[in-house]
Amino acid sequence: MFLRMEMVDSKKIGIVAGGGNLPVHLANALQSQNIDFSVLALKDYANLKALLPFSPKVFRLGEVGAMIAYLKASKCSEIVMIGPVKRPSLVNLRPDFGALRFLWKIGERFTKGDDALLKTVVNLLEKEGFQIKGADTYLPNCIGKEGFNRSLSEKETQDLNLAWDFLTVTAPFDMGQGCVVQNGRILAAEGPEGTDNMLRRIKPLGILPLKRSGLLLKKPKVNQEMRVDMPMIGLETLKLAAEGGLAGVAYEAGSTFVIDDSLCQEMAAELGLFFGGIKNSAK
Amino acid sequence: MFLRMEMVDSKKIGIVAGGGNLPVHLANALQSQNIDFSVLALKDYANLKALLPFSPKVFRLGEVGAMIAYLKASKCSEIVMIGPVKRPSLVNLRPDFGALRFLWKIGERFTKGDDALLKTVVNLLEKEGFQIKGADTYLPNCIGKEGFNRSLSEKETQDLNLAWDFLTVTAPFDMGQGCVVQNGRILAAEGPEGTDNMLRRIKPLGILPLKRSGLLLKKPKVNQEMRVDMPMIGLETLKLAAEGGLAGVAYEAGSTFVIDDSLCQEMAAELGLFFGGIKNSAK
Repeated sequence: MFLRMEMVDSKKIGIVAGGGNLPVHLANALQSQNIDFSVLALKDYANLKALLPFSPKVFRLGEVGAMIAYLKASKCSEIVMIGPVKRPSLVNLRPDFGALRFLWKIGERFTKGDDALLKTVVNLLEKEGFQIKGADTYLPNCIGKEGFNRSLSEKETQDLNLAWDFLTVTAPFDMGQGCVVQNGRILAAEGPEGTDNMLRRIKPLGILPLKRSGLLLKKPKVNQEMRVDMPMIGLETLKLAAEGGLAGVAYEAGSTFVIDDSLCQEMAAELGLFFGGIKNSAK
Repeated sequence: MFLRMEMVDSKKIGIVAGGGNLPVHLANALQSQNIDFSVLALKDYANLKALLPFSPKVFRLGEVGAMIAYLKASKCSEIVMIGPVKRPSLVNLRPDFGALRFLWKIGERFTKGDDALLKTVVNLLEKEGFQIKGADTYLPNCIGKEGFNRSLSEKETQDLNLAWDFLTVTAPFDMGQGCVVQNGRILAAEGPEGTDNMLRRIKPLGILPLKRSGLLLKKPKVNQEMRVDMPMIGLETLKLAAEGGLAGVAYEAGSTFVIDDSLCQEMAAELGLFFGGIKNSAK
């Protein structure tokens, strides 16, 4: 028993906190599980106010060398990177010396798709001796489950199937994790602008403004580095989907973070959206 | 000889004019070829001022019944639909009785992808006894040819190949005719918003603002109704591509309208863009 306590105690997690609420959720979850952790908050991304109770240490995104030194000094053995971080330009990054060493190895993959970049970062951190874990390891309740809050009409099922097929053919291109389909028509495919910005531009594209229809589907890319870049759905996603004239939001069950699932369910009900996860498109 | 003159004279073309300069080009081309024609200008789309010398008759998009009656009364045997027309909502369409008869047959295809809709419209017009011709029949010089205005770097060729592959897998989805690739990364896929709006949103997505790179590729969808919806490139396309930080613009040779080809070549040179067509992506 003593030995087991020792082993649990020996694990320390470094939370690299990007935007949104998930880093706070994770910190709370680790605290309630008595797991030791340090919070590295990314300047301009992390919600510092919400993270304050966990005494975050703030770093610029470019201070990779300083971050690694801090993670080692505070004896973190695992790293969880969580919360959205918009990829900066090389100019805005202002890398420190440790980051330059990283960038040298990353090389031109810095300019490639997000997934190619993240895989390289994960690889390099592993070589530094850290274990990289997905936030879902400690937040199993935030993983979107199978099933919808209401049954889908035939048309909605057809839209869902079309969206699924589309994301299936685009999945190998390391492009985006979502698309919008309405009445058999693909209104938008997500690129690096992200889901929310995609939703903001669909409103003028819809053709039946009198009646909400269509859906957003989120689904991981092929071979996506799920530990650090799982598709995410939050309250804002649902709000923007409704504002964009859609009837619902769907995701691949088991592969999507649903932030505040019960709040999302409430919000979906309030907005009159169908909402839920599928394992595979039912043909 | 007399008989042949008779036959030539008996052909009359109805130009259904949407936006941009192509309807004017077409009218000029027909005039110089001594082919008889009438111009139907679509209200809110057609450039009425530029079409004025051809005495256009103006119709709302929804006045399909009146348009067909006019085409028949002016003894047009062929129809050429040319120039971009944004698909209206059913509400804004305010269809006349003839259009309602059309819409009845079009049914829910009105809400589908552009190509599904256009194919149905063409089909119905053919049943009314009209021949539908592509504008390229009379504007062969506006079809984009093979070859570029300068040789492409290895990176640019890689981007072109990636764009080609991407549009090849999305082509069956009746979605868009273009995409933007930069340094091995797909920045945007065109949806119903059109090429120009896609180009307007790529600027903040680029990662290397100090150096222009990447390209726009335009390529038809699978089984696209090329007679009425060929991909198009004009001066505005080139301008927006340069402003978006791209290094060039490419198209599928033989399947793309290049409006004012010599002006486009001048504009590309002035903006420092590579510009040209390929038959097939060179692997």
